[in-house]
Amino acid sequence: MTRQIRAALIGLGNVGRNFLRILEMKGERLERQYGLTFQVVCVADSSGVAVAPQGFDPEATRRHKETGGRVADLPGFLPGVGPAQVLADLTCDLVLDASPVNLESGEPGLSVARTALARGVDTVLANKAPLVLAYQELHRLAQESGAGLAFSATVCGALPVINIGQRDLIGAEIRLLQGIFNSTSNFILGEMAQGRSYQEALAEAQERGIAEADPSLDVEGWDTANKLVILANSVLGAPTTLDQVQVTGILDVTTEQLQALARQGRTLKLLAVAQREGEGYRFSVGPTELPVESFLGRCDGWEMGVEIRSDLYGRMYHKIWEREPLPTAAAMLRDAVNLATRH
Amino acid sequence: MTRQIRAALIGLGNVGRNFLRILEMKGERLERQYGLTFQVVCVADSSGVAVAPQGFDPEATRRHKETGGRVADLPGFLPGVGPAQVLADLTCDLVLDASPVNLESGEPGLSVARTALARGVDTVLANKAPLVLAYQELHRLAQESGAGLAFSATVCGALPVINIGQRDLIGAEIRLLQGIFNSTSNFILGEMAQGRSYQEALAEAQERGIAEADPSLDVEGWDTANKLVILANSVLGAPTTLDQVQVTGILDVTTEQLQALARQGRTLKLLAVAQREGEGYRFSVGPTELPVESFLGRCDGWEMGVEIRSDLYGRMYHKIWEREPLPTAAAMLRDAVNLATRH
Repeated sequence: MTRQIRAALIGLGNVGRNFLRILEMKGERLERQYGLTFQVVCVADSSGVAVAPQGFDPEATRRHKETGGRVADLPGFLPGVGPAQVLADLTCDLVLDASPVNLESGEPGLSVARTALARGVDTVLANKAPLVLAYQELHRLAQESGAGLAFSATVCGALPVINIGQRDLIGAEIRLLQGIFNSTSNFILGEMAQGRSYQEALAEAQERGIAEADPSLDVEGWDTANKLVILANSVLGAPTTLDQVQVTGILDVTTEQLQALARQGRTLKLLAVAQREGEGYRFSVGPTELPVESFLGRCDGWEMGVEIRSDLYGRMYHKIWEREPLPTAAAMLRDAVNLATRH
Repeated sequence: MTRQIRAALIGLGNVGRNFLRILEMKGERLERQYGLTFQVVCVADSSGVAVAPQGFDPEATRRHKETGGRVADLPGFLPGVGPAQVLADLTCDLVLDASPVNLESGEPGLSVARTALARGVDTVLANKAPLVLAYQELHRLAQESGAGLAFSATVCGALPVINIGQRDLIGAEIRLLQGIFNSTSNFILGEMAQGRSYQEALAEAQERGIAEADPSLDVEGWDTANKLVILANSVLGAPTTLDQVQVTGILDVTTEQLQALARQGRTLKLLAVAQREGEGYRFSVGPTELPVESFLGRCDGWEMGVEIRSDLYGRMYHKIWEREPLPTAAAMLRDAVNLATRH
């Protein structure tokens, strides 16, 4: 028996478009394996919101965006309203938010998530901002309404760090969680250790499309800290905000320093650390010396990874190699399917 | 609101006793965090089966076994019946099987699993044998009755390989899955690479309690192959039996060969491989050369690990360090909680 999931997709950047591409590639398989079909009944980008009760064609919509088209040019465009207003009474079963990260206001993602969760609509976030700014509020809204809330795409791309923490470490006390969560800074540090300057390494990361035009979130450590805040709230059970994390970026790291460390068999990584202390955790993000031969010391270039030590499950190490947005979009799909099949 | 889970625990060896220990340690936390209390209403070992509708005390039962006591000495002992007979009409919500692996008959685990699943009772297996011998039958029984069937403790101890494969790689086609699944043979190969003989390394593994008195399942590759068969059925969606796996053990590997490889920066690992071919997979287990610097090449000693390449989720690497049965017992607990909270 096939169940149709009417989905609203907010944000049609790299991740949103790749989500559409996965629906094109995998629609048949999802129906066969999980009994689900996804119908995209609402799309939004910075130009506005469009709705189509019968569903937008994923391929046509993706191509429209890839060739410079806007949502405002689509049939079903609703002038003058934002996504949260539309979602307030749209008939839908799932809201996917892949809109841009805005750490000042959290918008539009925060209003989108609040509206969907308050109505009891399952919500999948690839956007970190609403979680960083309002984790506890969103969690409570979901609990009160019975909506599902999933966000496994927000930390380390498609590496299921949050799922492992929430579902696979049942009953454990995590004593140490540390990881490399930002591939732009990891790539830059790796290139600098080979003798290149910070500016050269950054320029290459930007050319390859991994670094933003404004890389400050990455290299100043805030992107990493955002992910640590999400893990603290969702996995460590510690209500935590960004101001509780001690953050240092990589801007003071020099090529000479990295090369000297390399000669000693050591390396410097921008490490996020949650260390158990008393009844809580101490949170920090900063350049940290590691043996080259350690698991995180060998987490190089395009890789992101995490080490988790707990009282019940020994020491676990997880890493991923990815260098395109497809895996992150796939992580949204995994959340959507897991929520739809949870009952 | 607390829900009571009446559980039958079949098998009180290292894993079963550690499961009881976790209930002692974590009972309060499980109630607070998941709203669950576990009441062990039935226990079984090779001496027989005992039932206690009000529940056995976990600590007293564990100590009884640790000091040489048998289930046959417990109040509630039922002479002359096996666990499957008792489970056929026992009032319970969950069956946990940690009985010894018997790859000839699968017993007593296979009858236990069949009986529980046919009645619609959630079943958690740490015992590989029933899955290796009858995966498709048990899966079908669970589907027909609506019972949950989980077995994340059967592959790589507490590393959640099966959960990651089933829940976190939604929609993906796995192209390559390869891993180190047996720590006895991994330990022996590591010691031999340092110059020790096979016999010396085996003796130490036995002294440390990781290798069985009869290590043939480990060193001949069959334990690894069993785990590959479980992954093939549960994660790769490929109904597979042991005779489809090409298996070579480590008995022909020499200390000289390992030392020569080490000088070239290479190492030999007993590797399980599932390689996509056409519409199916080619399965093999055998000593395999790897660069020392690779992820699996650096999976040493007490570690087990897996690499998974797929079309949607990039390349993922997972490993665990554990050297006691506690994490495997914790994996049973995780399965039990995840099944109990799935509705």
